[in-house]
Amino acid sequence: MNSTDTLIDSDLLDFLSGFPELDKEERIAIGQKIPVREYKKGDTLVCEGEIPSECYFVLQGCVRQYYLIDGEEKTTAFFTERQAVAATNFIDQTPSKYYLVCVEDAKVIVGKIHQDEEMYKQFPKLVTITRVMIEQDFNNTREDFASFITSSPEKRYLDLLDTRPDLLNRVPQHQIASYLGITPNH
Amino acid sequence: MNSTDTLIDSDLLDFLSGFPELDKEERIAIGQKIPVREYKKGDTLVCEGEIPSECYFVLQGCVRQYYLIDGEEKTTAFFTERQAVAATNFIDQTPSKYYLVCVEDAKVIVGKIHQDEEMYKQFPKLVTITRVMIEQDFNNTREDFASFITSSPEKRYLDLLDTRPDLLNRVPQHQIASYLGITPNH
Repeated sequence: MNSTDTLIDSDLLDFLSGFPELDKEERIAIGQKIPVREYKKGDTLVCEGEIPSECYFVLQGCVRQYYLIDGEEKTTAFFTERQAVAATNFIDQTPSKYYLVCVEDAKVIVGKIHQDEEMYKQFPKLVTITRVMIEQDFNNTREDFASFITSSPEKRYLDLLDTRPDLLNRVPQHQIASYLGITPNH
Repeated sequence: MNSTDTLIDSDLLDFLSGFPELDKEERIAIGQKIPVREYKKGDTLVCEGEIPSECYFVLQGCVRQYYLIDGEEKTTAFFTERQAVAATNFIDQTPSKYYLVCVEDAKVIVGKIHQDEEMYKQFPKLVTITRVMIEQDFNNTREDFASFITSSPEKRYLDLLDTRPDLLNRVPQHQIASYLGITPNH
């Protein structure tokens, strides 16, 4: 490892090494351009009502999405390693309906409006890489949605045990319960 | 309109005319390369267990996604005009867990594996157009998912009235009820 590598976050470099279509020089060049930010547990990424100027991709940690309904937090998603954090209002530039808060210390890639285009021009391989990642993420979300609709809360819990067992040890039980549509004492 | 135009499906041309970044010549060139197919009400696009060789984008009509659970159809999505039809198994090339069936006569754009790349090479503007469309579709799906989790069946019905009022006149009530998680007589 030479001195140039040390300027790049190791988790980011690790993430980029998962793309065989990028050679080492490209990974370093891209890695140096991608902004990485660290958050502490409890930090807020987006508040309800805010128009987000950034979007995120999780390298490490867990970000929870929740709505505040009649004073109660209703958890709608947990974003962990290698997941894009919901950014519905980032594209529309409308006020966010939900909160995004770190459930654990987190390290994220930060995306800013219109910055993508420059990166794509400079590193054309990123166009396909990003598209495939988004399609995969989209498909997983659709599967999760369909599975949520077709399942009872009990079945959802068993599915979660199967697909994301780590989550149960990482976030408080009452947030899992809220996400699955069950009461904590159920 | 000259004779070349007449070779292109009018709904497809209408759809392409929604992209100001494409000039008339590009719209025609692209339109001639995009395969459009018509289906009759009741036609099946994908069966459970099948590995799909195609994906779809709705120009006209309505496609229903459902799972068969304990002999009962559980509706999980309705795809209408300007929506990509779920193709979770198209990318993975794994057997489909659900059925995709036309609730109305439908006209769809047909996508085939690896064909996209050729189109992108030939018409580079399509890269950004497609990415923005997928991102928008993804965001809408995430919003729908979050809204589904946070809502009661009654609230879901009111939301549907608000966001997709046409749907209520286009598909049978029991399918809407299944989708919203309510019983038909509720």
